[in-house]
Amino acid sequence: MQVQQDIDIRISRLQRLIVEQGLDAILVATPVNTLYLSGEIYQGLLVVPSSGTPTHLIRRPQQLCNSKKLSNAHSIRKVEQLAECVDTSNWKRVGIELDELSYNEALRFQKLIPTAEYTSCSLMLRTARMIKSPLEIETIRQTALRHTEVYKQIPALYRAGMTDLELQIEIERAMRLAGSTGIFRTYGSAMEIFMGSLIAGENAEEPSVYDFAMGGAGNAALPLGANGTRLKEGMSVMVDMAGNYSEYLSDMTRTFSIGKLANEAYRLHELSRRMHREIMDKATPGSSCAELYNQSLAMAQTEDALRYFMGTKQQAQFVGHGLGLQINELPVLTSRSRDVLQPGMVIAFEPKFVLPGIGAVGVENTYLVTETGIENLTPLCEDIIDLSIQA
Amino acid sequence: MQVQQDIDIRISRLQRLIVEQGLDAILVATPVNTLYLSGEIYQGLLVVPSSGTPTHLIRRPQQLCNSKKLSNAHSIRKVEQLAECVDTSNWKRVGIELDELSYNEALRFQKLIPTAEYTSCSLMLRTARMIKSPLEIETIRQTALRHTEVYKQIPALYRAGMTDLELQIEIERAMRLAGSTGIFRTYGSAMEIFMGSLIAGENAEEPSVYDFAMGGAGNAALPLGANGTRLKEGMSVMVDMAGNYSEYLSDMTRTFSIGKLANEAYRLHELSRRMHREIMDKATPGSSCAELYNQSLAMAQTEDALRYFMGTKQQAQFVGHGLGLQINELPVLTSRSRDVLQPGMVIAFEPKFVLPGIGAVGVENTYLVTETGIENLTPLCEDIIDLSIQA
Repeated sequence: MQVQQDIDIRISRLQRLIVEQGLDAILVATPVNTLYLSGEIYQGLLVVPSSGTPTHLIRRPQQLCNSKKLSNAHSIRKVEQLAECVDTSNWKRVGIELDELSYNEALRFQKLIPTAEYTSCSLMLRTARMIKSPLEIETIRQTALRHTEVYKQIPALYRAGMTDLELQIEIERAMRLAGSTGIFRTYGSAMEIFMGSLIAGENAEEPSVYDFAMGGAGNAALPLGANGTRLKEGMSVMVDMAGNYSEYLSDMTRTFSIGKLANEAYRLHELSRRMHREIMDKATPGSSCAELYNQSLAMAQTEDALRYFMGTKQQAQFVGHGLGLQINELPVLTSRSRDVLQPGMVIAFEPKFVLPGIGAVGVENTYLVTETGIENLTPLCEDIIDLSIQA
Repeated sequence: MQVQQDIDIRISRLQRLIVEQGLDAILVATPVNTLYLSGEIYQGLLVVPSSGTPTHLIRRPQQLCNSKKLSNAHSIRKVEQLAECVDTSNWKRVGIELDELSYNEALRFQKLIPTAEYTSCSLMLRTARMIKSPLEIETIRQTALRHTEVYKQIPALYRAGMTDLELQIEIERAMRLAGSTGIFRTYGSAMEIFMGSLIAGENAEEPSVYDFAMGGAGNAALPLGANGTRLKEGMSVMVDMAGNYSEYLSDMTRTFSIGKLANEAYRLHELSRRMHREIMDKATPGSSCAELYNQSLAMAQTEDALRYFMGTKQQAQFVGHGLGLQINELPVLTSRSRDVLQPGMVIAFEPKFVLPGIGAVGVENTYLVTETGIENLTPLCEDIIDLSIQA
């Protein structure tokens, strides 16, 4: 699959949404959406009309205008040159990214065509990106495979006496050597993260300011994840590090232990695995995302585990999420979702439990929704591996 | 210096600006400004009135409401509860972060007090943060010290045959083990970065989409910095990795070589050092930031080095910048700046040259503006160190 052919598929799907919403064009300026619609990141404007070819207005890097990577590219000094490059005279309704652009940036964009009415195309773009194209699926598949290969190295990276942070640093290095790009894109203002999350022992109970599934005290600069906890006998170590082995992401959690955990930890870890088998593996196109969440909640309730489900002091209100160029894409597996699974969606399912004094347990896999069901893109042993035996 | 005492200093300075601009209060919601004004990151609203004590409206984490870290903290479910917690009845002019909040977030905030007029407080906050408080200076001083300690390890991390990326990964690990928090905050939408930048050989000429001093091709996910270049005899290796050893940043560049470089590289590296000594070391409170830039440009011109100054194919239009919680704070050393140096400013000065086929050379230090002059917070050997000898 050639990149340009694949991008044409994305543009076509987006243009159907543009037409459905009665827009004449959308103006794209955020790195993630520019990357999605051109394969490149540049400063300027990417113009997608309701039909026909997109135009790239490039302020920086100028060299991209002369490369063969983009057709229909114009060099600009400022976005106000829009009308010099594209015929905007008949545009009446234009979409801009009002959920992502700053207020002042959005005001500037709204002045580009003073006669047009502006509306948000943020949700439209998130909706288009929800269904992955063939090249996107292939890229995520390869990324997920590297993700599993790195996780296999984890037992060999552990040394007795390490802190959570020291183990995480060795995993980060293994990730980078395996091709992790480092950058970990999130959507919206409720999230900041570095290379992922590793939480052990009581730190798993610490609530976070951010809207991730799990918390962790982190540090003053980034109150999330590892906090320097010394890894000790009887603690679980939940590893949920980034799968950023290309511009696309995969998401994957495995649970480790230092020595043997209390029986309750194994019971709830098995419950998480059962949720994967009985809920996610049986999902098909048409399955309701809200229903998948509700089923998880019901299983946790039946097993008397609701108070540990997705946290204790602060409980996440979702059990899974779409992912792709960002870690929190659509759909969200939460009670308020109106989405149903569709072929081409890529979803992380992460039923997790936090046990006071022990830590977090559970499994997260990245799944592809196919025409007939669900494919696990992160197949790897799901047992709680005892790091103290491997070391 | 106690944290709360220091924060009181920041609040007082900010309140002088609030009064100067005729505002009744400002509403703060971004992580970086919440951290600046409370020492904590939380979701909700931080309300700074024109006089008196700030109020913290905390949506998440709820636990912060009951901690002793913040006084005057209220638990909220949504920001619309503002008037339940603070008497807003007399507010006529209110500031919100219109440069940072998304358009849709800003609209929501503007509805909180329907009778008030809203204006941007983004520049006001950046202006307040430009002058560092005593605890901020002490924190940056400690951060900068760790930055230099990690840079001392670089020769020992090099192995013959490495790529730029492999060397960077070993530096990243050394950084993390020395306490790097990982997160590297930037202001505005024109920047994305991971742990910093390491550029070698021809890659130094590659223009970047981002508004950093230097470029580098990077990868598809993040077109910046190292691109897998195999380090070879005759190449310079410019290391400009993050100084994120606390919630505050320092900034520092040193240049290394593989074997001996062409004479021109040493000549321009010495020119960069002379700029530090003859321009930056002689600066004092009152020095014009535009003038510091113009002097650098003039020295580059005199030495027939203008075409290599701050890049070749794409040249950065600044030679230094303020830094603190973010890497690109005020003031900016650029021809359009109207700022003058003031005691308490922390500035990175980074005159750099890019030599085709060789790489980038030059030095960057973080300087504190004192009452009488300039103090270098990143003192460390500034020679081009030959990694092939050390290895």
